[in-house]
Amino acid sequence: MSLGRLYVIGLGPGDAGYLTHDVAAALAEAQDVIGYAPYVARVPDREGRTKIASENRVELDRAREALSRASKGRVVAVVSGGDPGVFAMAAAVFEAVDEGDPAWRALDIVVLPGISAMQAAAARLGAPLGQDFCVLSLSDNLKSWGTIANRLECAARGDFVIAIYNPASRSRPQTIIDAFALLRGLLNGETIVVFAKSVGRPEERLIVTSLAEADLAQVDMSTLVIVGAQGTKLIQRETGAPIVYSSRKSR
Amino acid sequence: MSLGRLYVIGLGPGDAGYLTHDVAAALAEAQDVIGYAPYVARVPDREGRTKIASENRVELDRAREALSRASKGRVVAVVSGGDPGVFAMAAAVFEAVDEGDPAWRALDIVVLPGISAMQAAAARLGAPLGQDFCVLSLSDNLKSWGTIANRLECAARGDFVIAIYNPASRSRPQTIIDAFALLRGLLNGETIVVFAKSVGRPEERLIVTSLAEADLAQVDMSTLVIVGAQGTKLIQRETGAPIVYSSRKSR
Repeated sequence: MSLGRLYVIGLGPGDAGYLTHDVAAALAEAQDVIGYAPYVARVPDREGRTKIASENRVELDRAREALSRASKGRVVAVVSGGDPGVFAMAAAVFEAVDEGDPAWRALDIVVLPGISAMQAAAARLGAPLGQDFCVLSLSDNLKSWGTIANRLECAARGDFVIAIYNPASRSRPQTIIDAFALLRGLLNGETIVVFAKSVGRPEERLIVTSLAEADLAQVDMSTLVIVGAQGTKLIQRETGAPIVYSSRKSR
Repeated sequence: MSLGRLYVIGLGPGDAGYLTHDVAAALAEAQDVIGYAPYVARVPDREGRTKIASENRVELDRAREALSRASKGRVVAVVSGGDPGVFAMAAAVFEAVDEGDPAWRALDIVVLPGISAMQAAAARLGAPLGQDFCVLSLSDNLKSWGTIANRLECAARGDFVIAIYNPASRSRPQTIIDAFALLRGLLNGETIVVFAKSVGRPEERLIVTSLAEADLAQVDMSTLVIVGAQGTKLIQRETGAPIVYSSRKSR
C-alpha cells in the first residue's frame, strides 16, 4: 500500500488574499481536511473530500487522526488559521509523531507556512514589528503562570516589541489582567499598545492605546495584543487611524 | 492630480510558491517596482514598468523615492524578501513618512505581508517555533552591541526559542561569534541550533547542530539561525534529516 501525504497548512488570518500559492495547491489536492471547525469551514467542499471538524483544545487527537489517515494512503491536510508553526498545529503533529507509531516517522509530512495574525495586524497598522520582537502565548493550558510571567519580564527588560497570542478566553479572563499588571510595573505607561481584533475578517477592529490607558475589557479570544518597545512610535494623520511603527534604531 | 498608491510588499523567501494572492495581484498592478536588486530581479518585467534596483543599506533613500513617486500619482511597489514588516522595508517607509513631507501622510500606503525566512525555515524543519519565541537581528548598523547583548541575554533567560536574522556579513564576521559566546555562557551546550541557509532557494541547506558544537564558519549573510529552548527536540529518522520541533509544554 502506498503511503499518503500529510500537509500541515496555514490558511492565514481570514481573507483568502493571504493564502499562498503552495497552500492553495495543497488544498486542491487534499482528500481529507482536518482541523478546528472554523478553519475547516474555510476550505471548499468537493466530491470525495472528507472534512473532519473538531473542537478546540484537542490538537493531539486531531494530529493522530491525520497521521493515521496519511499512513493509510490518504492525502490529508491539517488546517490552521495563520501559520501552522506559530501556536498552531505543526508542533502538535510532530509531538504526535514523536510519541506515536514509529512508522509515522517515515511519512511524507509537508508543512506549508501561512501569514500569522501578528503579520497581518502589523501590516494593517504600519510596521510595529519593525525591530526585535518576542511572540508569546498567554494560554496556560501547557505552561505555568510562573513561566509566562518570567517570559513577559524578560521581554520587557529586553525592550522587545511583544506580540501576545491567546490573551484571554471565557474560562481564563484573569491572565491578561495579571500580564498587564506585570508589564505596567516594568514599562513606561506611555508605551504604545494595540489590540488587533479579528484581523483579516470583516469584523476586523484595531484599537491603538497606551499601556496605562488600555482597557482590558476589550480583549477577547479574537484579539492579538501588541505591546510596543521604546522605539515604537505613532504617526498621526488628519484622516484615518494613526500609523504605528517601530524605529529600526534602538538605543 | 490624483494620488497614487504605495504597496509595501513581501515576496517571501524565494520560491514563488510562498507568494500570497494579494501580493501577486499588487505586483500585477504596480507601475514602478523599487527595492534591493535581488528582490527587484524576482519581479517580472512588463511594458511600461519601471524597475529601480538599489544597493543594500540605503533603505531610507529607497523609501523616499517610492513615496515621492506615489505622491506623483504612480502605483509603486516597494519589494522586500520575506515579510516587509520583519527586518525589511515597512519600518523604513514609515520612518521616511514620519520625517518627510507632511503630504506623504495622506498617501494610500498598503503593506502586504509575506512569509518570512523564519517561517519557511521552521516549516522545512518541523516546528521549531512551536512555543514562545524571540526574533532579533544581529545587524549593528542601527543599534549597539550593548543592546544586542542585553536582548540575547533576556531571550536566553526567558527560555525563548531565538530566531536570529542577519547573523553575519563580510564586514561584520565577529557579531555571531560574540553572540554565541554569550549564549554558551547561559544555555546548556546541548541546546539545539539550526543554520538555515538560502531557505526557499535552489541552494537551500539546513544544518542541525548544538550550541556547543555549532561551527560558526558556516554562518553567512544568507543564514537564518535558530537557537532552541529547553523544550526544543529532535526526532531522528531512518531516512532524511531529523525533525526539529518545540514542545508546546513548558516547565
